[in-house]
Amino acid sequence: MIFERERLIRFSHCDPAAIVFFPRYFVMFNDLVEDWFDDGLRLGYAKVVGGRRIGLPTVSIHCEFQRPSRMGERVLLSLAVERLGRSSITLSVGCRHGEEERVRMRQVLVTQSLDSGRAVPIPDDIRAAIEAFQQGHP
Amino acid sequence: MIFERERLIRFSHCDPAAIVFFPRYFVMFNDLVEDWFDDGLRLGYAKVVGGRRIGLPTVSIHCEFQRPSRMGERVLLSLAVERLGRSSITLSVGCRHGEEERVRMRQVLVTQSLDSGRAVPIPDDIRAAIEAFQQGHP
Amino acid sequence: MIFERERLIRFSHCDPAAIVFFPRYFVMFNDLVEDWFDDGLRLGYAKVVGGRRIGLPTVSIHCEFQRPSRMGERVLLSLAVERLGRSSITLSVGCRHGEEERVRMRQVLVTQSLDSGRAVPIPDDIRAAIEAFQQGHP
Amino acid sequence: MIFERERLIRFSHCDPAAIVFFPRYFVMFNDLVEDWFDDGLRLGYAKVVGGRRIGLPTVSIHCEFQRPSRMGERVLLSLAVERLGRSSITLSVGCRHGEEERVRMRQVLVTQSLDSGRAVPIPDDIRAAIEAFQQGHP
Repeated sequence: MIFERERLIRFSHCDPAAIVFFPRYFVMFNDLVEDWFDDGLRLGYAKVVGGRRIGLPTVSIHCEFQRPSRMGERVLLSLAVERLGRSSITLSVGCRHGEEERVRMRQVLVTQSLDSGRAVPIPDDIRAAIEAFQQGHP
Repeated sequence: MIFERERLIRFSHCDPAAIVFFPRYFVMFNDLVEDWFDDGLRLGYAKVVGGRRIGLPTVSIHCEFQRPSRMGERVLLSLAVERLGRSSITLSVGCRHGEEERVRMRQVLVTQSLDSGRAVPIPDDIRAAIEAFQQGHP
Repeated sequence: MIFERERLIRFSHCDPAAIVFFPRYFVMFNDLVEDWFDDGLRLGYAKVVGGRRIGLPTVSIHCEFQRPSRMGERVLLSLAVERLGRSSITLSVGCRHGEEERVRMRQVLVTQSLDSGRAVPIPDDIRAAIEAFQQGHP
Repeated sequence: MIFERERLIRFSHCDPAAIVFFPRYFVMFNDLVEDWFDDGLRLGYAKVVGGRRIGLPTVSIHCEFQRPSRMGERVLLSLAVERLGRSSITLSVGCRHGEEERVRMRQVLVTQSLDSGRAVPIPDDIRAAIEAFQQGHP
């Protein structure tokens, strides 16, 4: 199953070349994970991170920027789960505009205790929600 | 007339104190001006700035931060026109959460040629759209 | 006494008009307060905020943007203390390039407990360091 | 040859977990490329990008985040050239704190005309400067 979200490319995303400055894609992709937790997994991102103090730091990114995105465009961001480990979540993330692929990323997150700073096994309810999402029962 | 937009306070807005880092409010407020041009004035922000090369630089900001905003909150951003000059637009911008006022700002923008870098009179169609907005005929 | 710091205007500060996007000035000014605590007051910003958990949230900003700054310029940021209250610090902050004034800001910070979220009186050692700075004995 | 630059981890880099929010590393790494063009290659980044309108968009990033960086730390950023193609530059970028590796990235940039938006061969003077840098004759 794929979680998707439309996103407007804004003035504040763009650099002097009038295209998205690449670090700002990663902010958009982080927002997408947030929206996925809120609306795709129905876990409440702020409750997980702020309330339960389970962080989701990124440990690895492989990202290809194929075409630039320009101010005013409405792009489609997408997220799928590639692999679910003991304490890691591998995501396949993309950005496209119509048929044109703009960015493709593989990102590995880990679940971490914000108190100890150490990786923790993915909590059962989060694992169950992600597995249901993978199987298309959101 | 008031233009309003709900906005989720995200992880990426927040600082080590877990509240919005104040410069990021100004990005949200800039996005609000963008949405106002798109959806309130129906002028198309990207067309004005990117296409017609009319910039809207900020020349003055008076801003009071009354209460902090926290990750996961949905705040209401609002924008009203206080004064329309020859080449300046004075906005009254706010952020509230329920009944609680969070931020109040007065901001002055000017219309500028992005080619010459100089202030230009507000173009007639933009002035007409803003006046219609002020009179509640969006 | 005035605390000054040179700063390079970078690609990442600039917008599609190839000038500094105004919210990024506030990040530079926040960095300047950090440098002032580190090098002007010799208090160690990270120790104060991270260690002692005394935050310095901004409660008010009055800011005039007089001239744009462009990529590659080396601007001079300056900071002076205008007023020291019981739990507030009023700063006069500026950005200039050679003789040309670019930005002028008055900013009010308050000292706050990051645990309670409430304003606290400026701690004695911080007050003493600021008073020494004001009198030119850094 | 390796180009290095010390960098203070600032409040504005950090997230609610009080560690660097990963997209902000990419801004730091972009600043590092800028400093390398200015001080390592002596080409003047702003002259190349702003003056000659040769952009350096990123087309690929492989990045591993090994350990978090915290507010107040002074990290060492490093950059080496891995490969020089016809219109691409492959960089090996790192961030460490003392002996501890924090981030390791391989990044591919291309030289692009900002007017046509197309890749262009690396201009001769830029290629010569990079080759001299690789051979340790900066």
